[in-house]
Amino acid sequence: MSEHWSMGLKELFAEAALRALDDAGAEGFDSLYVANMCSAPLQGQLHLGAMMANALGARGVHAARVEAGAASGGVAFHEGVKAVASGFSDCALVGGVEKMSDGLPEQVAAALAMSEDQEYTAYTGVTRVGLNALLHRHYMDRFGASAEDVAMFAVRSHEHAVGSPHAQYPFKVSVDRIIASPMEADPIHMLECAGVGDGAAAVVLVPAEGSGSNVEVAATSVATGSYYLANRRDLLTFDAVREASARAYKMAGVAAGDIDVLEVHDDTTIIGVLSIEDLGFAEKGKGAAFVAGGGTTRDGEVPTNTFGGLKARGHPLGATGLYQVGEVALQLRGDAGPCQVGGAGVGMAESLGGLGSTCAVTILRRA
Amino acid sequence: MSEHWSMGLKELFAEAALRALDDAGAEGFDSLYVANMCSAPLQGQLHLGAMMANALGARGVHAARVEAGAASGGVAFHEGVKAVASGFSDCALVGGVEKMSDGLPEQVAAALAMSEDQEYTAYTGVTRVGLNALLHRHYMDRFGASAEDVAMFAVRSHEHAVGSPHAQYPFKVSVDRIIASPMEADPIHMLECAGVGDGAAAVVLVPAEGSGSNVEVAATSVATGSYYLANRRDLLTFDAVREASARAYKMAGVAAGDIDVLEVHDDTTIIGVLSIEDLGFAEKGKGAAFVAGGGTTRDGEVPTNTFGGLKARGHPLGATGLYQVGEVALQLRGDAGPCQVGGAGVGMAESLGGLGSTCAVTILRRA
Repeated sequence: MSEHWSMGLKELFAEAALRALDDAGAEGFDSLYVANMCSAPLQGQLHLGAMMANALGARGVHAARVEAGAASGGVAFHEGVKAVASGFSDCALVGGVEKMSDGLPEQVAAALAMSEDQEYTAYTGVTRVGLNALLHRHYMDRFGASAEDVAMFAVRSHEHAVGSPHAQYPFKVSVDRIIASPMEADPIHMLECAGVGDGAAAVVLVPAEGSGSNVEVAATSVATGSYYLANRRDLLTFDAVREASARAYKMAGVAAGDIDVLEVHDDTTIIGVLSIEDLGFAEKGKGAAFVAGGGTTRDGEVPTNTFGGLKARGHPLGATGLYQVGEVALQLRGDAGPCQVGGAGVGMAESLGGLGSTCAVTILRRA
Repeated sequence: MSEHWSMGLKELFAEAALRALDDAGAEGFDSLYVANMCSAPLQGQLHLGAMMANALGARGVHAARVEAGAASGGVAFHEGVKAVASGFSDCALVGGVEKMSDGLPEQVAAALAMSEDQEYTAYTGVTRVGLNALLHRHYMDRFGASAEDVAMFAVRSHEHAVGSPHAQYPFKVSVDRIIASPMEADPIHMLECAGVGDGAAAVVLVPAEGSGSNVEVAATSVATGSYYLANRRDLLTFDAVREASARAYKMAGVAAGDIDVLEVHDDTTIIGVLSIEDLGFAEKGKGAAFVAGGGTTRDGEVPTNTFGGLKARGHPLGATGLYQVGEVALQLRGDAGPCQVGGAGVGMAESLGGLGSTCAVTILRRA
């Protein structure tokens, strides 16, 4: 995750994919899922499946692009699992790529807004951060949380990114500095928002039996909720997150209390806080205090965003969900280096699209 | 298939989806795959999965958009089958939608070119039809086919569209009229190209056992070939089509000779001809003569594009592959009305993305 001015979509994707194949000891793959959100508006490029198969020198393989807004990575992982589970694939390569830094700021803002309805929401001119700001303000009003309480989510993310080899912003940021940064959309400060960057991440999926892998997929689920804030039963509850995680907990036979390491979709601080709550780690309205109190630190109740999350690792949209899954796998394998948490046996990743209208939840387990 | 000026993406998709659910007698669905190619460049809209789930009043369901250029529909069907075959889904709704007629001609041309590499191919300014013209010219030169021979593919498509309730151009067109129409990209005449239009199509997939359905999925496969004309072993052979169909024939336990009804991706006439050859219905170089000689007519050797194909039914990009699958199913059920062919037991659909760089093949069988 960084600004990669000298690399295009193909180069970024191929580097991540080849490293994943090498790490897995895979000779090749028969299915390819490419997660990407904004290559059409930002690079004028569609049909990434066959393009990336070609870039990897593969011929005759299955290839498809999966898009679900910023949840594209998490959803693509889910489709990759189905490919293997159905017997159609013996080795599925699932990679995500996004290149945002060569877009002009207004082009990036317009591309991000494409995950909301152009006819009802985006046409008003509201930005993605502007929508998050509605939730952020409402959260502060309803639960009496301070700006500092919510901003602590970003402080934790930056603490965790220190030492990470792939974080875009691997340094600490104090809560005072966050509160002193310019307003992006009141009450959200600039330093509460994931930045713009370029990145790619990839994982390899094979049938568990005989794979020799020490990480297995315990559950994967995707759920949608209302596409519009206006007709949600509660502005501060993401039904898609509740449904997807409930289904995943059931499939894996675990509860929130069993999760040893967690990755959530903190594209702004409030979304991280709401995720912590809707995934079951804190009561509604108590998430910010849970984070501020240390519940998500490396030796806290549930170490969260252990490589810096969207805020500090970086948020290359379609690739983000696969960074998350890969990071959980690294933790379970004990390969997380300076970001390692102790003795993690079960890990979870949450990937969000739109304003929490699509949620993909993955639970991995040490085999 | 038509120009639907008063309907947006949601209205088009919902109409097709609700009709499919009604036809299937389904109470609802738990998985949704939305096939679409150009909603980002033409409508500024991404994240169609959750949007369409919402438009259908569904909550908590899985939803994802699948994109593979103009093969999006065929590939989405393939992913839907995996969802059911893996046990993740009990009822998958797979729908495609595309709205092209509210784009300016240059916007549509640019959007279509996004299925080719922007850095190596599209930046030259070549259009999609221009690329097809290279193949068309080479075919005529190498195999001594006349302009009329190749144009006969469009004549057949229009013959079949007569009486079809959903064809965009349900009338006959003579070979003379085609040859007299303006050059779109020499040697391709305007009336050899699928037009621009709006459409949506949807199918419902459930486990075969106990479904009571009289059509079953015998095979589905997706394969990719070289993304670039420049490094193909043979300009006039689509390796992706050969690989996808070989795999599908094997999975279904049938050969080309067993196919009773066929839908191929004739976005221009030459692509229809090459498809007929690479799917195994005519030798290389003999496809145009096979079509001109009546091999693909309603009572020919393999009735092809029986509702008019891309040329006469219409070609709403991401939706097209699902029109094809739906049309094959209608034929097998005996519900094809004036387009019905006699006693079809096995049918096949071929969906192409890029210049044949992605191919999805579906084989359906009367249960």
